[in-house]
Amino acid sequence: MTRKSRLIATAALGALCLAGAAVAQSAVDAAVKARKAHMQLYAFNLGVLGGMAKGEIEYDAERAGQAAGNIAALASLSQAGYWPEGSAQGEAEGSRALPALWTNGDDVMAKGAAFRDAVTALAAAAGTDLASLRGAMGPVGQACGSCHESYRAPE
Amino acid sequence: MTRKSRLIATAALGALCLAGAAVAQSAVDAAVKARKAHMQLYAFNLGVLGGMAKGEIEYDAERAGQAAGNIAALASLSQAGYWPEGSAQGEAEGSRALPALWTNGDDVMAKGAAFRDAVTALAAAAGTDLASLRGAMGPVGQACGSCHESYRAPE
Repeated sequence: MTRKSRLIATAALGALCLAGAAVAQSAVDAAVKARKAHMQLYAFNLGVLGGMAKGEIEYDAERAGQAAGNIAALASLSQAGYWPEGSAQGEAEGSRALPALWTNGDDVMAKGAAFRDAVTALAAAAGTDLASLRGAMGPVGQACGSCHESYRAPE
Repeated sequence: MTRKSRLIATAALGALCLAGAAVAQSAVDAAVKARKAHMQLYAFNLGVLGGMAKGEIEYDAERAGQAAGNIAALASLSQAGYWPEGSAQGEAEGSRALPALWTNGDDVMAKGAAFRDAVTALAAAAGTDLASLRGAMGPVGQACGSCHESYRAPE
């Protein structure tokens, strides 16, 4: 191999690695954006229900049932793709996910299951009446908070 | 009413109107963000399936089925809250929704139904094999494009 061909081969390998890293980074960025979008949709629907619970939005059984049904349907989506390695805070732009999220698998799964239970109960209650909606909101807020406190860095 | 009390009343009314407008604007902004988040989740899941269809991501029946199932579940969410009056392009920041979206109700509903049919078929096909996935992607792309061409302004 001549010096020139070595240089070309090295440059080509470098370009390939950079391209590979860019693809990997773009996949990580897409995952971070997707999980934020998912949380945004929880927030949008919870905003409607919270507004009704606080009396800022008039209670409407159909609308409440739809918002709570949306949350339960979102919670049932397959979300494994949201959390690739390399997407913790400091590794991926805009990420506030703490590294413990990737090491405390059992606790993360348990918190996820508690959240799904709470939103399933919310979906069953929200369209009944305002008191039922209010009663089902607390456990959902606790489930959200429980995971955020353990696995999301403060802003 | 003295001149001073009239001034105070006018100022208070002005503040109230501004506050009301701010609340309304923030509801519109929340709706625009939510519909963009919803589209983002379609894109994330379609990115996985498109990558497999093009051979850039290795076909994995389980992962394909989950991504397509996610899209079908998202399509079944209640989305009425995404499109409040005052959220067309030029009315709400970041909106590219054309005003015709609010006036062509029958066509919008028909396009929505065609999209749901296409993603239901995709969800049934994606986990079977790569050829089935590829075959079901075309109608989904057409359904996306059909609505975007009619109701979304170019960037």
